Amino acid sequence: MCRWLAYSGSPVRIEDLLYRPQHSLIDQSLHSKLGAETTNGDGFGIGWYGIGDTPGIYRSIEPAWNDRNVHDLAAHIETPVLFAHIRAAIGSAVQETNCHPFRYGRWLFMHNGFIGDFHKVKRDLVLAVDPSLYPCVEGSSDTEVFFFLALTFGLEDDPPAAVEASVGFIEAVGAKHNVEHPIQMTVATTDGNRVWAFRYSSERDSRSLFYSTDVATVRALHPEIEILRELSDESRLIVSEPLRDLPGVWNEVPEASYGVVQEGQDELQPFTPRPPLRQGQLRPRPQALL
Amino acid sequence: MCRWLAYSGSPVRIEDLLYRPQHSLIDQSLHSKLGAETTNGDGFGIGWYGIGDTPGIYRSIEPAWNDRNVHDLAAHIETPVLFAHIRAAIGSAVQETNCHPFRYGRWLFMHNGFIGDFHKVKRDLVLAVDPSLYPCVEGSSDTEVFFFLALTFGLEDDPPAAVEASVGFIEAVGAKHNVEHPIQMTVATTDGNRVWAFRYSSERDSRSLFYSTDVATVRALHPEIEILRELSDESRLIVSEPLRDLPGVWNEVPEASYGVVQEGQDELQPFTPRPPLRQGQLRPRPQALL
Amino acid sequence: MCRWLAYSGSPVRIEDLLYRPQHSLIDQSLHSKLGAETTNGDGFGIGWYGIGDTPGIYRSIEPAWNDRNVHDLAAHIETPVLFAHIRAAIGSAVQETNCHPFRYGRWLFMHNGFIGDFHKVKRDLVLAVDPSLYPCVEGSSDTEVFFFLALTFGLEDDPPAAVEASVGFIEAVGAKHNVEHPIQMTVATTDGNRVWAFRYSSERDSRSLFYSTDVATVRALHPEIEILRELSDESRLIVSEPLRDLPGVWNEVPEASYGVVQEGQDELQPFTPRPPLRQGQLRPRPQALL
Amino acid sequence: MCRWLAYSGSPVRIEDLLYRPQHSLIDQSLHSKLGAETTNGDGFGIGWYGIGDTPGIYRSIEPAWNDRNVHDLAAHIETPVLFAHIRAAIGSAVQETNCHPFRYGRWLFMHNGFIGDFHKVKRDLVLAVDPSLYPCVEGSSDTEVFFFLALTFGLEDDPPAAVEASVGFIEAVGAKHNVEHPIQMTVATTDGNRVWAFRYSSERDSRSLFYSTDVATVRALHPEIEILRELSDESRLIVSEPLRDLPGVWNEVPEASYGVVQEGQDELQPFTPRPPLRQGQLRPRPQALL
Repeated sequence: MCRWLAYSGSPVRIEDLLYRPQHSLIDQSLHSKLGAETTNGDGFGIGWYGIGDTPGIYRSIEPAWNDRNVHDLAAHIETPVLFAHIRAAIGSAVQETNCHPFRYGRWLFMHNGFIGDFHKVKRDLVLAVDPSLYPCVEGSSDTEVFFFLALTFGLEDDPPAAVEASVGFIEAVGAKHNVEHPIQMTVATTDGNRVWAFRYSSERDSRSLFYSTDVATVRALHPEIEILRELSDESRLIVSEPLRDLPGVWNEVPEASYGVVQEGQDELQPFTPRPPLRQGQLRPRPQALL
Repeated sequence: MCRWLAYSGSPVRIEDLLYRPQHSLIDQSLHSKLGAETTNGDGFGIGWYGIGDTPGIYRSIEPAWNDRNVHDLAAHIETPVLFAHIRAAIGSAVQETNCHPFRYGRWLFMHNGFIGDFHKVKRDLVLAVDPSLYPCVEGSSDTEVFFFLALTFGLEDDPPAAVEASVGFIEAVGAKHNVEHPIQMTVATTDGNRVWAFRYSSERDSRSLFYSTDVATVRALHPEIEILRELSDESRLIVSEPLRDLPGVWNEVPEASYGVVQEGQDELQPFTPRPPLRQGQLRPRPQALL
Repeated sequence: MCRWLAYSGSPVRIEDLLYRPQHSLIDQSLHSKLGAETTNGDGFGIGWYGIGDTPGIYRSIEPAWNDRNVHDLAAHIETPVLFAHIRAAIGSAVQETNCHPFRYGRWLFMHNGFIGDFHKVKRDLVLAVDPSLYPCVEGSSDTEVFFFLALTFGLEDDPPAAVEASVGFIEAVGAKHNVEHPIQMTVATTDGNRVWAFRYSSERDSRSLFYSTDVATVRALHPEIEILRELSDESRLIVSEPLRDLPGVWNEVPEASYGVVQEGQDELQPFTPRPPLRQGQLRPRPQALL
Repeated sequence: MCRWLAYSGSPVRIEDLLYRPQHSLIDQSLHSKLGAETTNGDGFGIGWYGIGDTPGIYRSIEPAWNDRNVHDLAAHIETPVLFAHIRAAIGSAVQETNCHPFRYGRWLFMHNGFIGDFHKVKRDLVLAVDPSLYPCVEGSSDTEVFFFLALTFGLEDDPPAAVEASVGFIEAVGAKHNVEHPIQMTVATTDGNRVWAFRYSSERDSRSLFYSTDVATVRALHPEIEILRELSDESRLIVSEPLRDLPGVWNEVPEASYGVVQEGQDELQPFTPRPPLRQGQLRPRPQALL
């Protein structure tokens, strides 16, 4: 079980998001309240957008609370979009290539949850990854395979459809291998402009996920919080568990739904897994799907 | 706050001590029940006696529960004396040279607790380390300084007297710097033949410490535990917190006392800090103590 | 490019093999003379046989010359069979799961060289790994895939045939993808009783490989080397490059051949890659080979 | 022996300095031409100035050529002042707290060379560190002690005088302990505005050090180098060994001298160690100097 945070909005110093708040993500790495595990000490990662064509990522297998480098980086980097993730490994090795967020081109992807009985279904899932993407898989985690499935199924063109196709496919493969609950997930992905966040599980009992109330409202409710004065009204946080204990600030993402944080009106939509083949939404890669 | 385990007795495979028991030390690294912190993920170390003139040590800054190398070593090394330690850092850096157990010649030393306001007293304490030993100090932790003070004050000749002198000195230096509680400790040290374990704190509210009931009695109480059949009657465990929830097995080391595990009758004695100069027990090193 | 050492014979302390000799493997990690790269600082591993049903392995991504833990282990462990490997990464990530030796059950496997254009052929090779073995692949290196192919093709029953089948298959897949030189290798494998060492490359210009002259002869040639007095006549070293500059001690393994170190007479045989399907030597796993 | 680079000038992306040039610092970590050791794989560090009151630092014990995080950071951070250092350890442990650059407030400090027979003189040198600074010493390296001596002797007020005092003191202590060559050094320090670089050794045979010709001249000599078009005329590099093999670009810093890179005219001055007590330049700290 893991914890993650996605931020989109006015450029802020990373430490203001990771270290400053009460019950910050770094605190949660030691003392999660809502996680399936209280300790998330099996790796850490951040992704951010600044100079350069792709987002920067920093990933480490040290527990986040110990890592002096990330503390220093957080104090010296500002970004309009931040992904941060702390890992509690379930089975796969603790190594940087298994740390979230994963990156492909301008895209980041991170996940709290798991693919059920991954050792049973891994081979079938990996075979469905587009052969041109296959060599980019570097680690051994379920999430990286999930990400490359989503890329195979069109993540760069239509993220909700691609994630629905991936989850539909994972559930179909799981069913074939008699996996009781093929997937458990909250997932976030971004291209640096928009952020998509998904909450879903095959058993319809998904990990917690919250989004922040709009900044204008929070500012009115909590005028004492200084950082809010500097944030644009568009700024938004999505988190595995609330960062501060602030009435009126956190809203649960409903079961089986996803949200889009974007310029203009944000959206909240139902999430429905769809087996990819029936939907015809795939770029044709028959050899990959047999 | 840390957790530790000291074993002396029939040669056993390290994994039988570290991984097999319910609520093992490795479990405690994630979920300590009695520790001041529930997570002890800031480094790990073991020391053991086998071939070679000195004990072997293995120390790592990865959390113990993640470290595949130590799991493999534990499955492949047998030893009659084991020290194992999991660290929850208080201030000093997470690096191998700060991991316990510390070694000097045939001696090992490990510690749960802290020297109070170490940044205030560190310089005075380090100045008291014998200049011939000074270059051996490699890390920045309070415990390593404590160990080298004890060596300065005669650990190799008379461990209880040397630890009493060290603690007396630490308390005197602490008093000079207005430190309220100069030391909090459970400490174990060994030369590979005998094991000494100390429980003490300036405030007389020391970290927990337990020793196992003699093996013959435990065997009678719990005939279902297979490993007991292979252990000699002399075998003994000393632990920060009990490994299994077994009635009749664990006895608390009393406040301000120390035990000696040795061939023949083990001992339990009161522990009384004694400022080293007044006791005249030092090898004369005046330049080190001014 | 990497360096490796395989030892079989009288039980010796690991440090006598790794650290003591002039131009030892640890020296070679900094200053290889015959390697394609002079520095081999991208990971390190040892495997040994002692207590326990499987060999012990210790793998680290620190350069070998820096790793204090392995130095300590080497001083405290004796073994009749040692595999040691220092890595100079070519492409795949520097992580423990990519360090040699690889282990499966009682078997160890290590490799100097590479599978040519691995990103092109990886998917086809991985698909040929037996599905029951597939979940055991943890890293992203060419060698691990090679090892699991060899296991798929019967390594545990007939190592030379399985390696010949694997190399034949790798060459066939390489040819299909227009890879000029599909494989470059010196490889060692062992079950703890016998050691097999292979030297081969598609271009017939293989990395260097040497085996030691029989101990009785070396002892006569170099009576000044103390450790030789303690070694049985059966003891044998196989190395990427000679450890000491001793006349009469090192013999080159011929191009395209393999040796077997075993009780009784050792063997040296020609090595001929054979595509697995034509040889019918596979356990039937048709779904894996399509 | 180590390698370092100091840059001051127009803001540039770190990767343009560390990775892009032929024979870049990262290349030198594997294949130094002028270093006492060809491999510098015992740690790595960078320091830069951006947002935040203090410079950012990133230090790692992985060899620089392997570290994916630093590659990513280098691609995503721009800075007007960069310090970068690759380490070849001489004796002290490979740990982040021994990696350069060292930081105190706004100051950075890095060093190629060593304090001779450091184990003999360390205690005397550490005793001379101002007690208020003493708790900031975290590692065990000679350079960190050198840095804190320089801070004790007024680095923040007058860097050349403070470094001359430190070196004078180190030579005096070395003489007392019969150290033949008490110091060997090229050193750089900065407050983010000016950069000071020193070249000196007790034996007057110092490690190499070069500074770049003024940008206008280099631009005229090498119009093909694109990055030069974007650099201000004030931009300057100081390096252990030249980055590119470019005629007319690199000038040796003379033996026993130091340079200052600053707004307006840069300076090159002779360097003369001066024992601190005779110079009266110390803030009075008699207890520290006895």
